[in-house]
Amino acid sequence: MSADLGSPGLGAGPLPVTIADIEAARELLAPVVRRTPVEPNRALAERVGGPVFLKCENLQRAGSFKIRGAYTRISRLTDAERAQGVVAASAGNHAQGVALAGQMLGIPVRVYMPSNAPLPKVQATRAYGALVEFVDGGVDVCLVHALAWAESSGAILIHPFDHRDIVAGQGTVGLEILEQCPDVATVLVCTGGGGLLAGVAAAVRARRPDVTVIGVQAEGAAAYPPSLSVGHPLALATMTTMADGIAVGRPGEVPFALVQALVDGVVTVSEELISRALLFLLERAKLVVEPAGAAGVAAILDGEIAARLRPPVVAVLSGGNIDPLLMMRVIRHGMAAAGRYLQVRLRAPDRPGSLATLLGVLAEVEANVLEVEHVRTGVRLSVDEVEIALRLETRGPDHCRAVLAALRSAGFPLQV
Amino acid sequence: MSADLGSPGLGAGPLPVTIADIEAARELLAPVVRRTPVEPNRALAERVGGPVFLKCENLQRAGSFKIRGAYTRISRLTDAERAQGVVAASAGNHAQGVALAGQMLGIPVRVYMPSNAPLPKVQATRAYGALVEFVDGGVDVCLVHALAWAESSGAILIHPFDHRDIVAGQGTVGLEILEQCPDVATVLVCTGGGGLLAGVAAAVRARRPDVTVIGVQAEGAAAYPPSLSVGHPLALATMTTMADGIAVGRPGEVPFALVQALVDGVVTVSEELISRALLFLLERAKLVVEPAGAAGVAAILDGEIAARLRPPVVAVLSGGNIDPLLMMRVIRHGMAAAGRYLQVRLRAPDRPGSLATLLGVLAEVEANVLEVEHVRTGVRLSVDEVEIALRLETRGPDHCRAVLAALRSAGFPLQV
Repeated sequence: MSADLGSPGLGAGPLPVTIADIEAARELLAPVVRRTPVEPNRALAERVGGPVFLKCENLQRAGSFKIRGAYTRISRLTDAERAQGVVAASAGNHAQGVALAGQMLGIPVRVYMPSNAPLPKVQATRAYGALVEFVDGGVDVCLVHALAWAESSGAILIHPFDHRDIVAGQGTVGLEILEQCPDVATVLVCTGGGGLLAGVAAAVRARRPDVTVIGVQAEGAAAYPPSLSVGHPLALATMTTMADGIAVGRPGEVPFALVQALVDGVVTVSEELISRALLFLLERAKLVVEPAGAAGVAAILDGEIAARLRPPVVAVLSGGNIDPLLMMRVIRHGMAAAGRYLQVRLRAPDRPGSLATLLGVLAEVEANVLEVEHVRTGVRLSVDEVEIALRLETRGPDHCRAVLAALRSAGFPLQV
Repeated sequence: MSADLGSPGLGAGPLPVTIADIEAARELLAPVVRRTPVEPNRALAERVGGPVFLKCENLQRAGSFKIRGAYTRISRLTDAERAQGVVAASAGNHAQGVALAGQMLGIPVRVYMPSNAPLPKVQATRAYGALVEFVDGGVDVCLVHALAWAESSGAILIHPFDHRDIVAGQGTVGLEILEQCPDVATVLVCTGGGGLLAGVAAAVRARRPDVTVIGVQAEGAAAYPPSLSVGHPLALATMTTMADGIAVGRPGEVPFALVQALVDGVVTVSEELISRALLFLLERAKLVVEPAGAAGVAAILDGEIAARLRPPVVAVLSGGNIDPLLMMRVIRHGMAAAGRYLQVRLRAPDRPGSLATLLGVLAEVEANVLEVEHVRTGVRLSVDEVEIALRLETRGPDHCRAVLAALRSAGFPLQV
């Protein structure tokens, strides 16, 4: 938690995006985007004390809400602009959104991506017909290259969030939420640059001023709370989060104006909670969500935040483009954090029956052995010892402690 | 492929479940089960040459379609029967379906589960208030215990598929498919004992005799094709499949009669295809599906079967209750099968700079290093060698071959 959930301040001047803009975007997008499902979730409802729904933009075309803004923006280019092509900088979802929109509109797309971007995202972007240029460095450096290309070639830069058409397109998510869940009281929106949050707030609060709209940022990349405190966008010096989809160092000017005027608060969630939320969504909602997309659910898993949410709550799952390799790491981490997976190395006497004794101890405490690795030689072992690496399935933190205690008391010292 | 997709034979006598039974079940289930979404999938559509939709019973309450049959069956017990409680044998979905139905109807539930059943399924079953008894052995042995309990206590055994009410309940999936996808031409249904297949066929063919209904079995547990050949249920001598949800050794009598009369064919899919389908659904459809639930999509991934499917096709995703630990294994396996993940062990000279050279070679061929393990001593190594274990992210089979060739020609012999 890092900001009040009180009432938003009232904006002084006219806002950059109106409900009419969002309704126009919606008409434009009707034949293009999916009206994604809104799924009830009982386990989350218990935490909030009332209904919770998930707005599944992870099931959107190209795997995230980004196509909404990208298509809205690109389709409004003039014929002269279209002929120049478009260019973007992105590590993932925006790249895919722009590439798909360009393909549908028959406009050439060039995307600058970090050379360490996950291969599936690169391949998906190429599959939509975009030309991918790799850049050594992060998205910031990619943006420099994209800007240079725009200047030298005349191509139009499609910014990921800081443009009225982008925000208007993302705002169509808000209109759908109001239709699919008419009695909604609170909307949780994962937030990086603020395009989705600003658009949803503009739509929801125009139609239903009584609905609370809350942004959720990863605490390692949370530029909104300090920016809102000082009243203008501030840049973060550093960012650390696995939620690459919302790792944005500075709020956009257009979204910031809307967020400042319309949003009730921006809260932050830890990496630990994001990873637990991701595993929760996989296991309990059967939905694949990327770390950024799980931020809203992470907020609900924070007991302190959950206690202050007025149900029915809708949490937007903004995207599902997660690298399977990262998914494996998050599952392992989430299982370990929940005490359901235990990885230990221990020393055992190097004599017949030693491993059998060890496995007997584990069976006794009902730990399910997933993997055993037996290292017979190693620099830290004395000559009559072996090292054994174990991966165990356990039932929770108490069970983990019981397993470790049983190993110790059976004379198997743990290696650190 | 193991059976014709020709026309089904015409049944001789009256069938055990009629469309009226299914409509009655539907009315009963309306306030209880979710009408799960039907999601279009473009990547599968390309393989079939026309629209493909996924009927998401993985998003059903308790994580699979099983609640439909279980609730229908249990709610029709007499007051005297209800007072005796119900008993079931299951490793997973049926246990959860019966437990949830019992909880909703206020009827005590006892479930016999294999002692090696995945912990999440055991916990979910207990969370719905059921009493879980562990049995050493498979579901067959559990069933023996459940029957013994039924006889000694008077509890009613809820069979997972061989009962009219169960089949009628599962058939409601078919009615929803016809409403949600009115122009459907082919329905693919994952099949174990046959309850879901029989129910869907009874619903779909009564209303739309022109729609083709095809069962899909795991080839390591495919009792239907030989049973259909001889005209009565045959028991398999052995079964091997990771798709525990459809690992059933013998078709049920009730479902068999319906399948024989109404289904156009039963095809089989390999474990390899099931695992690819599961990874495909995670990555491309953002849906968590258990191995059994992915069988229909596995059939679409089989080029020979896909070529014979008349679109629009609806594939039923029957459930999503997959153990995260199994999901990790399937992801790793699927990535390796697709050449996107490479795990090798190699020998390297034990001198300064050796690892740096190796990493240089890998960088040169653009293999992304996920993990390096450096084993300095080992029985198979000569004294001046080390063993290095690598986990690499690769771009496909060709890239894998290029990586291995580069390692060999740089003088790093692979360990087998």
